[in-house]
Amino acid sequence: MNKRENIEQLSINFDLYTGKSSDLHSIKRMLSDMERLYYDNKAFRKEVESNDIIVYEYYILEIPATPENLLYGTTILYPGKVGNEYFMNKGHFHQILNTSEVYYCLRGEGYLLMEDPEGEVLIAKINPGTSVYVPPRFAHRCINVSKNEPLISFYSCRADAGHDYKTIEIKGFRKLIIEERGKPKIINNPNWE
Amino acid sequence: MNKRENIEQLSINFDLYTGKSSDLHSIKRMLSDMERLYYDNKAFRKEVESNDIIVYEYYILEIPATPENLLYGTTILYPGKVGNEYFMNKGHFHQILNTSEVYYCLRGEGYLLMEDPEGEVLIAKINPGTSVYVPPRFAHRCINVSKNEPLISFYSCRADAGHDYKTIEIKGFRKLIIEERGKPKIINNPNWE
Repeated sequence: MNKRENIEQLSINFDLYTGKSSDLHSIKRMLSDMERLYYDNKAFRKEVESNDIIVYEYYILEIPATPENLLYGTTILYPGKVGNEYFMNKGHFHQILNTSEVYYCLRGEGYLLMEDPEGEVLIAKINPGTSVYVPPRFAHRCINVSKNEPLISFYSCRADAGHDYKTIEIKGFRKLIIEERGKPKIINNPNWE
Repeated sequence: MNKRENIEQLSINFDLYTGKSSDLHSIKRMLSDMERLYYDNKAFRKEVESNDIIVYEYYILEIPATPENLLYGTTILYPGKVGNEYFMNKGHFHQILNTSEVYYCLRGEGYLLMEDPEGEVLIAKINPGTSVYVPPRFAHRCINVSKNEPLISFYSCRADAGHDYKTIEIKGFRKLIIEERGKPKIINNPNWE
């Protein structure tokens, strides 16, 4: 069989239960990397100082950033809260705004929160087996509402899409998902600029 | 929560174990749809006449065929053989040849067979949790080598990629995967044109 070296690069394992790859290193985001993203900054400071844990990790492949290639991998978002706001990832627009993304949930329970620059908001509930389409132009963020299980998804997008984290770091999302009486509730972000 | 109608379109369930969607109809391919694709035409004729069963099914979403959108869904390839050649799907090039595809295997055991127009061949073994990258310009076909389990994968590609089935229907793939002494073996396709 020819091209063994290529075959190994083309095949990458992402465990269906843990989301982890034995072939790659993940990018890890600690709570302290999430400065300004949770609405309750007092609760955030307290958490970071007492227990700066990992909030999520994800895999990014080294694939040339061209429109004919695709990026893909898993994201693993751990359960937890900052005050009454559920753990989430930073979320981002694509640098090439007019590109899309697909999520396919492997495990856990949560939401995919999306909004476009004009303020249209889309919110999709995700469970194992749910695919969610992030339409072109929509920023996207995962929120884990489970008490004890990670939220694990496989994702794919165009390799040249790029990440614009800055807009969200500055403005935030228009909506937040908090826990109220033990259940997820969608509220307006009081800090949205 | 706004945009309920959009949210439902954006979220589609594909069962992680069966690969099936309760939200969509699948496209089904019977053995009789596979004319000329198995190398042993005598065995093929006999099978079709005695037992024209379903070989595979897959989902295609209605998404505008533009470079900013993505297609995605599951493919379910059933176990079986025609003579000593394992069940496979037709396989295709993309009409926009210079586009790629990602497969993420949810269940089963098989191979992803790829070749480009110049004759470079890539063969990746797939098991649950294996992602395989089909590079731009490579035709691709799944082969199920399990005796009793379907081979189920989630796939994603650019929505404008398009399907060129004709080239494979006429020429075939350069390689085939057959069973020899109970094990998969890769051979040259004797009918390749």
